[in-house]
Amino acid sequence: MNGPKLPLLTNRADTLKYEDGVVRILDRRRLPEETVFVDCRDYREVARAIVDMVIQGAPPLAYAAGYGLALACRQSRDLPAPERRRALEQAHRELRATRPTGADIFPLLDRALALALAALEEGRDPEAAVREFVDGQIRAGDRAARLCGSHAAGLLEDGDRILTHCFAGAALNYMLYFALKAGKRIELIATETRPYLQGARLTAAQAREIGVPVTLVTDNMPGYLFYRGMITKYVTAADSISLDGHVSNKIGTFQYAVLAHHFGVPFMVLGYDGPDRERATAADIPIEERDPEEVFYCRGVRTAAEGIRGYYPAFDITPPQYVSVIATDRGLFSPWNVRDYFRAPEPEE
Amino acid sequence: MNGPKLPLLTNRADTLKYEDGVVRILDRRRLPEETVFVDCRDYREVARAIVDMVIQGAPPLAYAAGYGLALACRQSRDLPAPERRRALEQAHRELRATRPTGADIFPLLDRALALALAALEEGRDPEAAVREFVDGQIRAGDRAARLCGSHAAGLLEDGDRILTHCFAGAALNYMLYFALKAGKRIELIATETRPYLQGARLTAAQAREIGVPVTLVTDNMPGYLFYRGMITKYVTAADSISLDGHVSNKIGTFQYAVLAHHFGVPFMVLGYDGPDRERATAADIPIEERDPEEVFYCRGVRTAAEGIRGYYPAFDITPPQYVSVIATDRGLFSPWNVRDYFRAPEPEE
Repeated sequence: MNGPKLPLLTNRADTLKYEDGVVRILDRRRLPEETVFVDCRDYREVARAIVDMVIQGAPPLAYAAGYGLALACRQSRDLPAPERRRALEQAHRELRATRPTGADIFPLLDRALALALAALEEGRDPEAAVREFVDGQIRAGDRAARLCGSHAAGLLEDGDRILTHCFAGAALNYMLYFALKAGKRIELIATETRPYLQGARLTAAQAREIGVPVTLVTDNMPGYLFYRGMITKYVTAADSISLDGHVSNKIGTFQYAVLAHHFGVPFMVLGYDGPDRERATAADIPIEERDPEEVFYCRGVRTAAEGIRGYYPAFDITPPQYVSVIATDRGLFSPWNVRDYFRAPEPEE
Repeated sequence: MNGPKLPLLTNRADTLKYEDGVVRILDRRRLPEETVFVDCRDYREVARAIVDMVIQGAPPLAYAAGYGLALACRQSRDLPAPERRRALEQAHRELRATRPTGADIFPLLDRALALALAALEEGRDPEAAVREFVDGQIRAGDRAARLCGSHAAGLLEDGDRILTHCFAGAALNYMLYFALKAGKRIELIATETRPYLQGARLTAAQAREIGVPVTLVTDNMPGYLFYRGMITKYVTAADSISLDGHVSNKIGTFQYAVLAHHFGVPFMVLGYDGPDRERATAADIPIEERDPEEVFYCRGVRTAAEGIRGYYPAFDITPPQYVSVIATDRGLFSPWNVRDYFRAPEPEE
């Protein structure tokens, strides 16, 4: 019997690399069957990969966008400075316009552009400046995920049966890992998460690799499981948390939060490095609506009748009254005082 | 602009036939792309077709089982009377054991067996007796569906945006049809209903054919639509209604009922010919659990990681506090007095 181990989607540097003019992105759509990287040699290919869900999750896609800007620095290296500046501003705009809901991408890209332009101004290499910055962001993000997962694991109890939706990322892996290390017997119930099946594919495979028993259900089943008393905790990530405690996450998160609340099951949000400074309320969180065609297919196979409409809001918003606790790298917060995150001490190792 | 029309899955005789020793069952799994019948020449093939979801819905599968017993009468025609009797009792047991949640199959098969044995006793043809009985049940069922749909249509209002789950059958078709005929502008929002996709395929295709605009969403989206105020009514069928007003229906029905209740949206159940006499309370409704492998696939394509468990309760139970009204062929009932159905006058045309 081996101890728990940390699977592939834990350290972001294993799944996203910047190698001499190539951004290599692990294609999450093909996991767990295949471990294949998409190589991007143009920042527009990076933008396309983000839009096409090659990489998913608010922090990872922000890091990919950052490397995209490094690529734009390289692509523009032979241009005169004023044109190069405009080229970088253009790349920044395009990368920023890829996916609106997750908040991490915006401050990261803004900072990366500022660093690139400053380097340009000062005669240093903007590509190196952006690349180093993004490398550091990834290290900081990995650390936040580990600390967030550790704090979340502290709230789990022996015997917990945890419902989760979509793939909550590295913090989920750490939470499960630390709970097992602490000798807690826990089980995961994963929703498949249509239309992209992140639960059936990413969450299920990661949990199995960590060593947590995982049971897959379709997205219409959690209500019955709550009714039967089969769920003791509900845990998801957040693509965005507003300062007043509204949580945006993969579509479906909200309906299971209402059910959890109805049945008295606590809902814990893995909040990584805290709420989004720039988003005061739910009204500041845009909800991405994706191509309705995507709900007509499942893994490339047509599932729907012809001649109908579809609707695909990719995220929803859960108001604070349905959220029990937000775990972050700086500890645990109620949604009602999550803005205190910024006054909390920086985490120590 | 043509008026509304009634689509294929309205009159059951169009989708289920008994023809000289062959039970012909329209394969709902291949709709709407293909209109293909599965021909059963042995009652065990009928039982298999019911288990394999060739035919779905509590009344239709009960009719198919009834024809299966007629087939058993034919198959056993050369046996001496005592052996033939045992053969029919055996077929009755096997057909009865196909799917446990929908209640219609049990009284129908019990009555069909009694008629067959009486005919045998009296020297009449049991096959003809069962066949005539089932034919009559189908005619009565079609009439109940039409009246139920008509009563339900009366509750719809101009501008309604109706959420529905799974395929609510002929009564849904009639409800939509009568509402359009009455000049009400209504829209349908259909959940795809994993894993069998009845919503994406049957409901969506039928509604489109009737002339009702239909929007497809995945099973994780209704909560957000309620939150946004995009749903004004929630309507489903029932596979079983207990005398104390608990409604069993396709898994997922319950979670959307809780959400509807939470957001003050009425939930109307299409109750066809009323509650089930033999089921006093929710405890009398068995919940069919199907092979967990079925949640790992979508239209034959693997959707899930390997090495995990699955769980597939095929139905759930909605307690009466979440049900606003039950429409039947004898009019509208509150779930709290649905047992009064049996005291209500028989419907007139």
